[in-house]
Amino acid sequence: MNDKVFIFDTTLRDGEQVPGCRLNTEEKLVIARALEGLGVDIIEAGFPISSPGDFEAVNRIASEIRNTTVCGLTRAVKKDIEVAAEALKPAARPRIHTGIGTSDQHIFTKLRLDRDRVIERGVEAVKLAKTFVEDVEFYAEDAGRTDNEYLARVIEAVIAAGATVVNIPDTTGYCIPEEYGAKIKFLKENVKNIDKAIISTHCHNDLGMATANSLSGVSNGARQIECTVNGIGERAGNTSMEEVVMAMRKHNMLNFDTAIHTQKIYEISRLVSDTMRMPVQPNKAIVGDNAFSHSSGIHQDGVIKSRDNYEIIDPAEVGVSESSIVLTARSGRAALFYRIQKLGHTLSHEALEEAYQEFLKMADRLQTVEDEHLQELLQAVKVA
Amino acid sequence: MNDKVFIFDTTLRDGEQVPGCRLNTEEKLVIARALEGLGVDIIEAGFPISSPGDFEAVNRIASEIRNTTVCGLTRAVKKDIEVAAEALKPAARPRIHTGIGTSDQHIFTKLRLDRDRVIERGVEAVKLAKTFVEDVEFYAEDAGRTDNEYLARVIEAVIAAGATVVNIPDTTGYCIPEEYGAKIKFLKENVKNIDKAIISTHCHNDLGMATANSLSGVSNGARQIECTVNGIGERAGNTSMEEVVMAMRKHNMLNFDTAIHTQKIYEISRLVSDTMRMPVQPNKAIVGDNAFSHSSGIHQDGVIKSRDNYEIIDPAEVGVSESSIVLTARSGRAALFYRIQKLGHTLSHEALEEAYQEFLKMADRLQTVEDEHLQELLQAVKVA
Repeated sequence: MNDKVFIFDTTLRDGEQVPGCRLNTEEKLVIARALEGLGVDIIEAGFPISSPGDFEAVNRIASEIRNTTVCGLTRAVKKDIEVAAEALKPAARPRIHTGIGTSDQHIFTKLRLDRDRVIERGVEAVKLAKTFVEDVEFYAEDAGRTDNEYLARVIEAVIAAGATVVNIPDTTGYCIPEEYGAKIKFLKENVKNIDKAIISTHCHNDLGMATANSLSGVSNGARQIECTVNGIGERAGNTSMEEVVMAMRKHNMLNFDTAIHTQKIYEISRLVSDTMRMPVQPNKAIVGDNAFSHSSGIHQDGVIKSRDNYEIIDPAEVGVSESSIVLTARSGRAALFYRIQKLGHTLSHEALEEAYQEFLKMADRLQTVEDEHLQELLQAVKVA
Repeated sequence: MNDKVFIFDTTLRDGEQVPGCRLNTEEKLVIARALEGLGVDIIEAGFPISSPGDFEAVNRIASEIRNTTVCGLTRAVKKDIEVAAEALKPAARPRIHTGIGTSDQHIFTKLRLDRDRVIERGVEAVKLAKTFVEDVEFYAEDAGRTDNEYLARVIEAVIAAGATVVNIPDTTGYCIPEEYGAKIKFLKENVKNIDKAIISTHCHNDLGMATANSLSGVSNGARQIECTVNGIGERAGNTSMEEVVMAMRKHNMLNFDTAIHTQKIYEISRLVSDTMRMPVQPNKAIVGDNAFSHSSGIHQDGVIKSRDNYEIIDPAEVGVSESSIVLTARSGRAALFYRIQKLGHTLSHEALEEAYQEFLKMADRLQTVEDEHLQELLQAVKVA
């Protein structure tokens, strides 16, 4: 039995706060319903104090979503927590997510406080949130750059105050997997009440390592991953939901699993991309247009012989209908013959060879050779 | 002194073989010149046997590029190597990159050979390539899924045959960093002539971990990274050049460096994206449109106080003019006041508070609030 990892989706909060991604309440509801259908465990629906529109959206999502936990973000500020509690009132499973910066950089430059005062502020915020809801998550902002000994003190104090989940964000996306995993391990080993809470990862992708960092966190004791669909979010974005979910599903060294219905991944990826006007690049892992297409001759030949030669995920597992063999000037004979056969033609060895030579010239001119080009080519070869 | 890691760019080979990315020879020359200017150590210019167009491009690049090594890909096939040698003839610093599949999956299903025969084929290929050029790189295709003991035998044999670089590709993008690093370490410790060659990483991004895997390889003894601009390439693409380069430049636990002129990164990213018609998503690390933009109120306030609160890279280091404070409904007072000041206005405390309330309503309607909207808003506030 693999250990369960909770999926905390923040597409509607950390994703939605990005330039150009703003949604109205109706659009947010559509995405929230899709996230519930996908099987995420927690939906972070917004940051209620930040604007009247965000308050309304959290409130409406809290009213409608019944099976998934609905979460609202706050700073460690009284008014933020009261407003979030108000927005979450109709929720079947409400969670308040509160927290404060814990790195020296944040404490001295941003908050202009000191280390002890930050712990007090965190504890007060958790206690206040507990007066409204049972499920309170605490974030130690910029934990990635926070001294581990001090971080352990913060975490122990907020768990004692009632936090059910403790979030260790790599806010600036600076960590490497070894370092982030070691941080989680340090907390697991040095916070004496750590078993009373779930450790959560929240990684950013500024150096392209959010997925590896989140999984390193899980391998060292975390049991919740905060992520977004398509990895959208502030700057270079957050951990991609689809990447961590599929890595845990497929990799034999990651003995974890989630409640995600993976066949719905492609559909929600498109929904989020379209609604939030945030394009997914063709070479995006799992959900990019090219994620399952093979174009070089060596690869196409291999895939035609056995898909396992170059594919580690059956595209159907994530809701993509099939892997594709795209014909370009890098394609070899195997791919060309495969596609000619699919069009219902049988050619002699000589005709096939002739077709291949013609195909190469055609492909050097065109970007990709489509079925209609092949039909044309076959006419020429047959007539000759 | 940090150890040097060689950057082997395969934008024109593994990148160019993707559907829609095909370039003509002139376009390839433009990119090759830009890669030389960027400071990459090796340009993989193409796969000469694959088509007449590719032969010509490798040949032209070999004629023109003088300071950077120019490399051509081959299979472990006599004709491939002869054609590549011909294409590379004019090069000042030619390299032939030859190899064969070494995983059982590839040996039995794709090649239909056996393990000993694969070693013989690899050795023959390296020896033949050595008759044409001094610098011969060998790739063990699907090394990511190859048994380590057998892989060590293959690598020892090809180094003995003259390989100067040994490439350990995670062809299917299945590895996790711990596993890939352990593989490199195993080779470093178990191949007795390993110090006669440079170990190279070649990772794919199918599970979103190519960057972390490449760096784990370097931390365990590799000294060359194969990568592409913007991470383009087959399926989910290759390791992103900009991500590994900047991670090594910025992270204090990665004591390595490259010869890359990082201020040219943004420019070449745009050149490759435009020429190869391969969009870069806004949330792409380092080179995405949003990589250095801050939109949430908490982050904007932090960045205005000190950029180090949320930024680990000065945008100027990669050729981006400055980080931007984008005004949306998630922005707080600090960001609004900052932008109003930049427009040259000074308002009383009351007027600013009033402006903020008006701004929130405006921002709930608009995606982003631009300077002209602010001017309009300020008119209203001042008149009132």
